Amino acid sequence: MKRIDKMQIAMIGDKMLPLEDVGPEYLDRGIFFGDGVYEVLRSYNGKIFAIDEHIARFERSLGEIEILGVDIDEIRTRVKRAFDKAGLANAKIYFHITRGSGKRDHLPEANIKPNFFLTVMELKDNAKLKDEGVAVSIYPDIRWKRCDIKSLNLLANVLAKQDAEKKGCWEAVFVDDASFITEGSSSAFFAVAGDKLQTAPLNANILPSVTRKYIVKAAANIGLKIVEESLTPVAARIAGELFLGVTTRDIIPVVKFDGQVIGSGRPGKWTKLLIEEFKKFTT
Amino acid sequence: MKRIDKMQIAMIGDKMLPLEDVGPEYLDRGIFFGDGVYEVLRSYNGKIFAIDEHIARFERSLGEIEILGVDIDEIRTRVKRAFDKAGLANAKIYFHITRGSGKRDHLPEANIKPNFFLTVMELKDNAKLKDEGVAVSIYPDIRWKRCDIKSLNLLANVLAKQDAEKKGCWEAVFVDDASFITEGSSSAFFAVAGDKLQTAPLNANILPSVTRKYIVKAAANIGLKIVEESLTPVAARIAGELFLGVTTRDIIPVVKFDGQVIGSGRPGKWTKLLIEEFKKFTT
Repeated sequence: MKRIDKMQIAMIGDKMLPLEDVGPEYLDRGIFFGDGVYEVLRSYNGKIFAIDEHIARFERSLGEIEILGVDIDEIRTRVKRAFDKAGLANAKIYFHITRGSGKRDHLPEANIKPNFFLTVMELKDNAKLKDEGVAVSIYPDIRWKRCDIKSLNLLANVLAKQDAEKKGCWEAVFVDDASFITEGSSSAFFAVAGDKLQTAPLNANILPSVTRKYIVKAAANIGLKIVEESLTPVAARIAGELFLGVTTRDIIPVVKFDGQVIGSGRPGKWTKLLIEEFKKFTT
Repeated sequence: MKRIDKMQIAMIGDKMLPLEDVGPEYLDRGIFFGDGVYEVLRSYNGKIFAIDEHIARFERSLGEIEILGVDIDEIRTRVKRAFDKAGLANAKIYFHITRGSGKRDHLPEANIKPNFFLTVMELKDNAKLKDEGVAVSIYPDIRWKRCDIKSLNLLANVLAKQDAEKKGCWEAVFVDDASFITEGSSSAFFAVAGDKLQTAPLNANILPSVTRKYIVKAAANIGLKIVEESLTPVAARIAGELFLGVTTRDIIPVVKFDGQVIGSGRPGKWTKLLIEEFKKFTT
């Protein structure tokens, strides 16, 4: 690199270069601020599940943080195009849009253009998760107060998941200051007691989960009453059945909660019925 | 792109490519999760200000989110090396470290290596800010509960700053659920009443600002009593003087708060004395 008297510099790892030679991918507001929103979808046997709901939620997320000028139909087309190209029957589709690239400043530059990024990956079957269930830990809900927006600010979720792993758990559920469970670090949380299915009501601290919507529908189909009320960890420990709703795995039974074995330590009756009922949506 | 039967796909904008051809810069956990921490420093007349404090805070931030294996002395060396190379007397130095790049999963891969990125930019003088002061708006403190960590999860800060701009303000200060001001979206917040300098105490909702530390020192030097107590917006509106502490601009007088003119609408006496006193640290 030529030394001139004054220049703006960047360093990537230990490599120095003139700032003007740095590509926009390094100057993405997604990395500087998490200034973007995302979605995760999956396909079952060659068909993308609930694409309309995911696209609608994505559009809402974009609007809530005022990322403007995105053609949502073009996004839908890209998702389908990439999925078709991949040719994977069971795929996980991730995509995000950030506000764009530019000089790092909280205020974006006036004519900034959003950045789009997507991946289609193979989603391997994991029957064990459904057959045996998983253990779940609890973690304080230290997330921001707009978890209804599916944003790239997910450090609290990462910390919760790391903590869960240390405890030998597959997932962590967040517990707020009022001692209520909000949701999992990457899942919605459900309890069954008697003939009632309980889950937290949707509010600013809860992502409007697409899987949740279908679980509620499946629950109604099999005769469960839906109760939208937040659950405490104490109530969860004594619930008959617990499970998670996850886009990539629909329903995952929870057989241990914060160290406490749930029910018989095996996936419960209603949970198994729900898993079967959910399959009707995906076939 | 060759069409094969099954493949994992990525899309950057509307361009499709095999996932394996995507560079690690697109798979950075910084962008997927904001899974990283950063610092901003400045130089005054060819000398980096308070580098030890910034490096120490950075090391703490790394530790708090358990990004391991970073040689902090190497980071200090890189900062100095880039600054020297740039040859800019008044520079703004930004750098971050993310947990690394890999397949998007909340749980990082086992052998993930942190990514380092740094920029050195010219910091242009802006005497008007100090001479005339700025207007400040208020915004609900919707940030996460670990703002003592200087993380890349800054979407709430971006939203607050955008809101401030719409209101014709230079900065937004956050007001928490208990109606206390925590700090600005990218600044610390101070009030002067009589011979007292008031600012929020350091806790999990406040970044331990390096500038704050020097402001407190300057305040003691000129005979102000330091009161570490959170301020309400009501109290701020009737304060004699208000100002912000910002790394890149040290002290910025606030002459309008949430629409209310502060004092005479000009930078106050103590604020001007503090600006002069602060200069002793930087020359």
